[in-house]
Amino acid sequence: MTVGALLALSAQAQVQTFSKPEDAIRYRQSAYFIMGQQMGRINSELKSPSPNIAAIQRAAGIVESVFRLPGEGYVPGSDKGNTKPNAEAFTDPRVGEIARRTAGELAKLSEVAKGGDVAAVRTQFAAAADACKSCHDDFRNK
Amino acid sequence: MTVGALLALSAQAQVQTFSKPEDAIRYRQSAYFIMGQQMGRINSELKSPSPNIAAIQRAAGIVESVFRLPGEGYVPGSDKGNTKPNAEAFTDPRVGEIARRTAGELAKLSEVAKGGDVAAVRTQFAAAADACKSCHDDFRNK
Repeated sequence: MTVGALLALSAQAQVQTFSKPEDAIRYRQSAYFIMGQQMGRINSELKSPSPNIAAIQRAAGIVESVFRLPGEGYVPGSDKGNTKPNAEAFTDPRVGEIARRTAGELAKLSEVAKGGDVAAVRTQFAAAADACKSCHDDFRNK
Repeated sequence: MTVGALLALSAQAQVQTFSKPEDAIRYRQSAYFIMGQQMGRINSELKSPSPNIAAIQRAAGIVESVFRLPGEGYVPGSDKGNTKPNAEAFTDPRVGEIARRTAGELAKLSEVAKGGDVAAVRTQFAAAADACKSCHDDFRNK
C-alpha cells in the first residue's frame, strides 16, 4: 500500500462525527425519541377501533429510516453523562446483531404496513417492538 | 356528503399525533438537532483540505430526509414552553413557503453531492443554509 493510499484510508476513517460527547448522546436520544413517538403512534392506531392504515404506513416508514441514524452516535466518551446505555452497549458484539435484527423487523413492519392488513401489521409490530426491547432489556440502565 | 364519509374524514383528520405539547416540542427539536449536526458535518468537510465526499453525501441524504419530520410537530399548544419558534411561526403562511423552498434546496444539495463536484456542493450548501436561515431569522426567538 502506498503512503498516499494509507493517508486516504486514514482520512476516510477520520470523518468528523461529533464535536463533543454530549452531542453524540443528544443525537442518539433525538433519533430514539422520534422512533418512540412513531412506535407509540402505531400502537395507538392498532388499539383504535378503526386503525388509520395510512398513518401506520407513514410512521413505520419513519421508524425504519430513522433507525439507521443513532448507531454512529456510540462514539468513545459518550458512555458517560445523561445517557442510558450501559458499559456493555459499547463493547458487546451482540448489540450489532440485535441492531441488524431490529433493522430487519422494522423494514418488514414498513413492508407489511404497505400491504394494509391490520392483523398482519399487529403481528409484525409485536415482533419489531420485541426486537427493540431485547436491546433495552440488556443494554440500557434502568 | 354522507354521515359515514364525514366520520371517515373526521377520523382521518384526528390521527393521534402527540400525547402532550412537550412531546411535539421535543420531536421538532430532535429533528432539528439531527439536521444541525449533519449540516455542521458538511460544513466541516467543506472547510477541510480534502473534503470527504462520501461523508457529505451521507449527511446531505440524512438532512433531506429528516427535514420532512418536524412539520407535524407544530401542533396547537406547542408554541409555549421550552421552544424557540415565535407566535408567527404557527400562523404565517410564509412558513410553509419557506419550508417548501428549503425542502427543494436540501433535495438539490443531496443531488449535487451525488455528483461529487466539491465546488458545486459548496455553492448549493450555501443556498440550503440560507433557506434554513431565512426561517430562523423571521420565526425564531433569539
